[in-house]
Amino acid sequence: MALIVMKFGGSSVADSDKMKHVANKVIARKKGGNKIVVVVSAPGDTTDDLITRCEEITADPNPREMDMLLATGEQMSISLLAMAIQSMGHKAVSLTGFQAGISTDDDYTRARVKKINPKKIFELLDKGNIVVVAGFQGMNKAGDITTLGRGGSDLTAVALAAQMKANLCEIYSDVEGIFTTDPRVVKDAKKIDLISYEEMLEMAGSGAQVMQTRSIEVAKNYGIEIHARSTFSDKEGTYIVSEEKIGRKKMEDLMVSAVTFDKNQVKFSLIDLPDVPGMAAKIFSSIAKLGINVDMIIQSAALDKKNDISFTVSKSDMKKTQQKVDELAKQLGAQTVTCDEHVAKVSVVGVGMKTHAGVASKMFDILAKNKINIEMISTSEIKVSCVIDSVDLNKAVNELHKGFKLNKK
Amino acid sequence: MALIVMKFGGSSVADSDKMKHVANKVIARKKGGNKIVVVVSAPGDTTDDLITRCEEITADPNPREMDMLLATGEQMSISLLAMAIQSMGHKAVSLTGFQAGISTDDDYTRARVKKINPKKIFELLDKGNIVVVAGFQGMNKAGDITTLGRGGSDLTAVALAAQMKANLCEIYSDVEGIFTTDPRVVKDAKKIDLISYEEMLEMAGSGAQVMQTRSIEVAKNYGIEIHARSTFSDKEGTYIVSEEKIGRKKMEDLMVSAVTFDKNQVKFSLIDLPDVPGMAAKIFSSIAKLGINVDMIIQSAALDKKNDISFTVSKSDMKKTQQKVDELAKQLGAQTVTCDEHVAKVSVVGVGMKTHAGVASKMFDILAKNKINIEMISTSEIKVSCVIDSVDLNKAVNELHKGFKLNKK
Repeated sequence: MALIVMKFGGSSVADSDKMKHVANKVIARKKGGNKIVVVVSAPGDTTDDLITRCEEITADPNPREMDMLLATGEQMSISLLAMAIQSMGHKAVSLTGFQAGISTDDDYTRARVKKINPKKIFELLDKGNIVVVAGFQGMNKAGDITTLGRGGSDLTAVALAAQMKANLCEIYSDVEGIFTTDPRVVKDAKKIDLISYEEMLEMAGSGAQVMQTRSIEVAKNYGIEIHARSTFSDKEGTYIVSEEKIGRKKMEDLMVSAVTFDKNQVKFSLIDLPDVPGMAAKIFSSIAKLGINVDMIIQSAALDKKNDISFTVSKSDMKKTQQKVDELAKQLGAQTVTCDEHVAKVSVVGVGMKTHAGVASKMFDILAKNKINIEMISTSEIKVSCVIDSVDLNKAVNELHKGFKLNKK
Repeated sequence: MALIVMKFGGSSVADSDKMKHVANKVIARKKGGNKIVVVVSAPGDTTDDLITRCEEITADPNPREMDMLLATGEQMSISLLAMAIQSMGHKAVSLTGFQAGISTDDDYTRARVKKINPKKIFELLDKGNIVVVAGFQGMNKAGDITTLGRGGSDLTAVALAAQMKANLCEIYSDVEGIFTTDPRVVKDAKKIDLISYEEMLEMAGSGAQVMQTRSIEVAKNYGIEIHARSTFSDKEGTYIVSEEKIGRKKMEDLMVSAVTFDKNQVKFSLIDLPDVPGMAAKIFSSIAKLGINVDMIIQSAALDKKNDISFTVSKSDMKKTQQKVDELAKQLGAQTVTCDEHVAKVSVVGVGMKTHAGVASKMFDILAKNKINIEMISTSEIKVSCVIDSVDLNKAVNELHKGFKLNKK
């Protein structure tokens, strides 16, 4: 008897018809002779509605109270889904995060899972129940309700699967799996059958709207096989597995698995900084202190004892960054500061790069042939990213997708 | 430093403006040098909305899951109210029922409070917080979330006040207090300044839309003074206290404190039952087994070895009762069964009856003078109730209110 964790996102439980559809899917899996744990997000727009209610009260909500508020969304989903399953004649019990034994740290609104005690879930499974667990939430030592941040329900599912040694973790959403790039941008984007954790991590990190990074990390660390698939079809989706499982053969076949992009970028440059040691450290430690995530950094070669430093941050951090950078420019003696909102990042990702030389140069070549100027470059073992002018983004994504033959899988 | 429990109903926290208004009221009480525990219901129509969502899923929801669902309403209120108080510069912490230490039995959707451990509330109060507690909910031994049934937030407030030895329990709503009768029926209905627990119990039991019976019982048992007042005015409302506090003087002044009525009644009669012992026991034990509450009962004098038995139940139980009564009639040999939906109950309530003879006869006299036929009568130490034709109800209430001089307080 296999143990399967099935996770359904908010759009899959947005209304009562969809809720019943999910109940049917879950029951079918149970009838297949499996033990089933279901993890659900808040229904549809519930979380946004709750945030609106909060904003009507205060612009600066206390994080503990925010978690208390937001946790109600998943609690609605679990009770309604349990009722739906029961109304179809099957045993089901709903559990909030803390009832499911999920303990977190104190970092409200983005807590980390510290420990899971699945005793209660196992007991309920042994009694023949489908166990419906609230995603996205847990409880800290003080007994406060906490939430796990964006994509937290994915994390709940994967962490439960890891702790309970589940045979499979299925992540259901309204898309059919992981694609070679965004099908809204490239018409012949293809669904990927098999992808490694590492590639998924790079894709998530480079702007693809896929699973939350932390949940992929947990899956990788515990070797949990993930099947990302659609709630509204029975087609196979994408299996996310270890590189070993994918095997050398496939890796050698394919240089690149996906093209990803991120439009949510803004580039700052400090021009003509004095070329003295410790300049970069000063700048980036000041910015890090504000909790701002810097993505790419380049420092130009020193000319006349002067340096330029450029870096990108996400657009939501633009205002905070601007203030700090202006301050730093004065302090450090930069001549001027520029801020460019019209940039985007395009990346190619693939474990095949490990065995194929020349992925980066091929990428630069494709961009050059299309007269797309590269402003910044960063690379990892299995990813190459370029910052370009955002007007060129669609073209870049399409040409790279074609150039790396992702349309011919 | 006094400890005050303030309870706000759903209409008082229906939107963000009202929520802020409540926050201001709470803060004003805190500034008066008091320790404050606030109990809140779910905002406005939230509970009804949740029930609608549930009904879309199933007509027969599992009570445990129903409680899991409904408890989210109060959880929204507490977090939003805590945020509102914080945004005005005061310390506040929200607690769900179980976080506040409220333990209940297993009777989902109408659980009884078994124990309250207010340790956490006291700790938070000692740190200078206004503590905002979710009404209507608790947790059973198994760790499931339970709810306390209709009016459960009143119970939470009074039970907390009792357990914590609060100096006062204020119940805020959208009315100014307890009235001598429903102001929508009698224009010169008067607000009552002081009323005894016993009178309140009889009023609640005879159809007045006042506080929940169980919460009045708890207040009485623990001697908790209740101030029922309006959220939207600073006027004094009605104090609910012990008979001793009201004093003999006032009791002797006033025969009757209030006229109440209940339109939600239906009368069943079993006609020509054989006059053998145990007939009534058989009928009412069968009905009790269905969980139906029988209100008034009369049995006519035996003529020709035949008996009539009539009784009233609430309209919501009409269908279930009809089936059972038809069955019983056959079984026991009744000639026929009648069911009358056009009945209503009118009652006069007052501790003054203890010292004034003739309240019942005065009531019958007033009804007779107005040509209102009495179908059934029941009395308690401080209440007289009559079942009459529902077309006469408004007239009866107005004439009794005038006849007992309640308009001349």
